[in-house]
Amino acid sequence: MFRLAVLASGRGSNLQAIINKLHLSKNNIKISCVISNKKMAIALEIAKNYEIPFYLIDENRYNNDEYEEMLIKTINSHDIDLIVLAGYLKILSAKFVNTFKDSIINIHPSLLPAFPGLDAQKQAINYGVKISGCTVHYVNKKVDTGPIIKQKAVKVEDKDDEASLSKKILKYEHQLLPEAIELIAQGKIKLNKDRTVTIKE
Amino acid sequence: MFRLAVLASGRGSNLQAIINKLHLSKNNIKISCVISNKKMAIALEIAKNYEIPFYLIDENRYNNDEYEEMLIKTINSHDIDLIVLAGYLKILSAKFVNTFKDSIINIHPSLLPAFPGLDAQKQAINYGVKISGCTVHYVNKKVDTGPIIKQKAVKVEDKDDEASLSKKILKYEHQLLPEAIELIAQGKIKLNKDRTVTIKE
Repeated sequence: MFRLAVLASGRGSNLQAIINKLHLSKNNIKISCVISNKKMAIALEIAKNYEIPFYLIDENRYNNDEYEEMLIKTINSHDIDLIVLAGYLKILSAKFVNTFKDSIINIHPSLLPAFPGLDAQKQAINYGVKISGCTVHYVNKKVDTGPIIKQKAVKVEDKDDEASLSKKILKYEHQLLPEAIELIAQGKIKLNKDRTVTIKE
Repeated sequence: MFRLAVLASGRGSNLQAIINKLHLSKNNIKISCVISNKKMAIALEIAKNYEIPFYLIDENRYNNDEYEEMLIKTINSHDIDLIVLAGYLKILSAKFVNTFKDSIINIHPSLLPAFPGLDAQKQAINYGVKISGCTVHYVNKKVDTGPIIKQKAVKVEDKDDEASLSKKILKYEHQLLPEAIELIAQGKIKLNKDRTVTIKE
């Protein structure tokens, strides 16, 4: 069994995609727990509906050290193989990243290294790019700079605004993130020393 | 007639693409002059072969002010509508850019704003992106940051190195640059105040 912890802060649409494409499928990949830093995260409701263990670690109730200590304990209690950040909007410390070295992935709504950080789709619209997309990458100590596992390009049309571009990109996020998780679970992803990522033959 | 000045520093493959797709076609777009800063630029040979006026302004013989003064004089002597940087590897001053405001375009071998500057393909390979591409943009005072006219995405395969990626991207540069020039010549490109570029309906 390949066990996932999914961390989410929001509506949980990427969580739902992982549930639909992996958790409910006949394979050896299962979501062992869903953790949110936000009280109102719909992701927690989704986890509940599918009887997946879920945890709220309310970021407003703890300082960062306390928060991460609880997060680490929760993850360790589930014997996790991969931590998936699926719309998780809290920055993880270097300590956390070291604790789960090369075992954390994130989905970001741009073609990194373009438009890291928050509101990537808005950044793309404001810059006036004609192509944006999404990126699945390993998480390292700096935000949105880790080794890239998969990317998908999305055309930006003249009529697009932040909302319409976000919607288009999200559709591909829902494909790309489960694809990347499946490749990792199958042992097909090789993280090279030069920080490139290749598919094993 | 829509008159182009093409500035090139190297082998001139983008110049050749403009000649094939625009200069030799039945339209109102013509290359009025080719200018190089490099003595050995094959681009000058190509211009000669097609009987296009060509100029060498050897960057090693003049300081930057002298160089640009000669460049401006040469361009002005040809009543140019658009200056096309086609593999032109010399940075233009703010004065030059102001002199030909919104009338200079460049082709860059990455999906800007990712990987500006020299060796964009090498930067992309070293970063480990899965998608790169090329960008046609207006030239402003900062290198590779001007309003984007057109972009094309190119997949980076695990086996790609700088040479193979450059070759793949170049193929699309040869499409994208003539397409952008044609749209501008047809008056179909609108450079908006918010620095985005849209196609006129």
